[in-house]
Amino acid sequence: MAWTNVLVGQSGGPTAVINSSLAGVYESAKAYGAPHVYGMQYGIEGLLQGRIIDLDEQFADKMQIELLKRTPSSFLGSCRYKLPEAGVDDRPFRKLFELFEQYQIGAVFYIGGNDSMDTIAKLSAYGATVNSPVRFIGVPKTIDNDLTLTDHTPGYGSAAKYVATILKEVICDSSVYNIRSVTVAEIMGRNAGWLTAAAALSKGADCDGPDLILLPEHSFDEAAFLSKVSELERTRHNVIIAVSEGVRNADGVFLCDLVSTAGQLDAFGHKAILSGTSRYLAELIRVRLGCKTRAIEFSTLQRCASHLASRTDITEAYQVGGAAVEAAFNGETGRMAAIRRLSDQPYRIATETVDVMAVANQEKRVPLDWITPDGMHVTEDFERYARPLIQAELTPIYINGVPQHIHLKECPAGC
Amino acid sequence: MAWTNVLVGQSGGPTAVINSSLAGVYESAKAYGAPHVYGMQYGIEGLLQGRIIDLDEQFADKMQIELLKRTPSSFLGSCRYKLPEAGVDDRPFRKLFELFEQYQIGAVFYIGGNDSMDTIAKLSAYGATVNSPVRFIGVPKTIDNDLTLTDHTPGYGSAAKYVATILKEVICDSSVYNIRSVTVAEIMGRNAGWLTAAAALSKGADCDGPDLILLPEHSFDEAAFLSKVSELERTRHNVIIAVSEGVRNADGVFLCDLVSTAGQLDAFGHKAILSGTSRYLAELIRVRLGCKTRAIEFSTLQRCASHLASRTDITEAYQVGGAAVEAAFNGETGRMAAIRRLSDQPYRIATETVDVMAVANQEKRVPLDWITPDGMHVTEDFERYARPLIQAELTPIYINGVPQHIHLKECPAGC
Repeated sequence: MAWTNVLVGQSGGPTAVINSSLAGVYESAKAYGAPHVYGMQYGIEGLLQGRIIDLDEQFADKMQIELLKRTPSSFLGSCRYKLPEAGVDDRPFRKLFELFEQYQIGAVFYIGGNDSMDTIAKLSAYGATVNSPVRFIGVPKTIDNDLTLTDHTPGYGSAAKYVATILKEVICDSSVYNIRSVTVAEIMGRNAGWLTAAAALSKGADCDGPDLILLPEHSFDEAAFLSKVSELERTRHNVIIAVSEGVRNADGVFLCDLVSTAGQLDAFGHKAILSGTSRYLAELIRVRLGCKTRAIEFSTLQRCASHLASRTDITEAYQVGGAAVEAAFNGETGRMAAIRRLSDQPYRIATETVDVMAVANQEKRVPLDWITPDGMHVTEDFERYARPLIQAELTPIYINGVPQHIHLKECPAGC
Repeated sequence: MAWTNVLVGQSGGPTAVINSSLAGVYESAKAYGAPHVYGMQYGIEGLLQGRIIDLDEQFADKMQIELLKRTPSSFLGSCRYKLPEAGVDDRPFRKLFELFEQYQIGAVFYIGGNDSMDTIAKLSAYGATVNSPVRFIGVPKTIDNDLTLTDHTPGYGSAAKYVATILKEVICDSSVYNIRSVTVAEIMGRNAGWLTAAAALSKGADCDGPDLILLPEHSFDEAAFLSKVSELERTRHNVIIAVSEGVRNADGVFLCDLVSTAGQLDAFGHKAILSGTSRYLAELIRVRLGCKTRAIEFSTLQRCASHLASRTDITEAYQVGGAAVEAAFNGETGRMAAIRRLSDQPYRIATETVDVMAVANQEKRVPLDWITPDGMHVTEDFERYARPLIQAELTPIYINGVPQHIHLKECPAGC
């Protein structure tokens, strides 16, 4: 097709490399001859409010692109908005397709997780019903790594590198005193344990890694867990446990909810909201086994630690952005750019596209045969899969001692 | 003196660069001709149990020293042991001086904070009473930066760089949705606000930095605070607050204790222990102002994030280790190596030694005239002081995607 303009948005939770995919879409679209590349501010939700940005004004020189690759969170802003079924309410669709026409948009790219793929699926389906020439392609991203039909998702490798690195540092820290202790590190991932499993990557010649890894894929058995911790306590000075925030017991109740339903009132007389799988387990071990324990939440940094991003991840995030543009240029629509692994060692991948309908609203969890039979660690198959994804680094550009980022120009710095 | 052997220990909480001081002591002592350099495992407490390590076996080649500079936490292990007054109980002193004689120790170096300087002061005072030839020199370290008579302490610069960098990333993350919110980041420092003040260093051309900074040096005024947050809420999308864990109200009560005395019971029927200054403030704002809030604890990583260390800090930590050895060689005892600032811009320092008695058990807090009159931010004087300390980086040696560390050889990896 003769290229018309391009529109790109970011959706869902941010990652350290979601902006690298934006860079990939932007530079590839320009290389393919798109006159204008527009961005949706705050995703589809912002677009429906008419928040459209001309990215050519943002990325006037190559240095901006280099900073973009090193800036965490979503440059364009994000949303958690889900389009209705067009058959139930077609008003947002009519509004969006009017905007596409107004801005002469030939292709729309949406960088996000499975909810975002639902958006792409709905837009392409609606487009077909109104004979729209606009092409819709999804670009995968999520630290959760839970998208189907792609070997892995951009964002995961950097989050995994962050988890493995800081767990290694925490393990160094935990051995400093000549005191037996149990450290419980809580890692993001409500339903899929991919990121928690990455704790295993802290293992190497200089570090044993975590002793136990608890994933949401395996229900928590308190008796077996305490027995295992007690056994470990006898043989080693410091027991290290990595736990997913999403671990549940056999009744399907999240461990963190076991805490918050215990009826505490906070200082203001309200029910306390304790995000607390690690606190729960640390307290369980302290009370039942009498050990000194400590709970650490890795928290938000898991999704925004650009200073520790995986270069493999940044490169692949850029590549899937480019692959999405190429697919649109070749006439595809209703697809998601994906990564296919060609070999583990040497690690090689190719990009391809897959049916976005088959990805939307689906969830890929850690295969049960990659979890040890006792449900408290991962196998070598997991490491073979994940180790390549955290390789190499992209050094931040430090100014005045801190990494430099780039922000939307309309938006006051740091807003 | 003709050099006899040297003994070095590490004490108190770890930092990202305490091992760089160990490298400085080790290499300088060898350069000055010490036949053996021994290490105390787990500080004076371990030494009293006879835990002595021959460091020549640990650092056989220069690569080990490079890894040592990049390994967080205390390579030798640490303790929080305080020597008794020799006049009350001289048994530990007699035991220690027997060991010094047995190992032909000519100089003892102790890397630590003000408690560790108390140890050096007591050992040198006792040494004088028994006409011991052993020299005792302290090497400063603490992320808290609260030692007197030194411009700053090694360990602070790296912790400050970590705080400034991750706060910048958290600020990026906080603006991702088109929703007004207040983020409260909790930073270490029970009595001195130096590390929390470092949140100001996140400010630059690309980031406004935190809107409010609450230090333990200024008592918390709830009404003034809520009024200020409410005012900020009206003018900006995302309000960012950095708070020291040690902030107290006008009655001298820690804000975190206001939470934990509220009588909650945890899931096990025990009083809940909530480390929670940030949680307290987030909840206060949510309840009183009705804002969406989020609390983030920067936690242990502040003292062990070697992957983000300040090269200035690593270099200076090494230099004060060397300066301590030089002082002992020159016949000094009962001294602490210190840093004197020669100029801010260009930043230049010199090492010197100071009377360890004047440092022991003292505490240096942020000067009140470096805090804004409302008590909720720091002035440019602070930035002029702190900015040079976070400059430059020392890249980790990444193996298999994670930074490589070094551990005591007797000790199984990661123990």
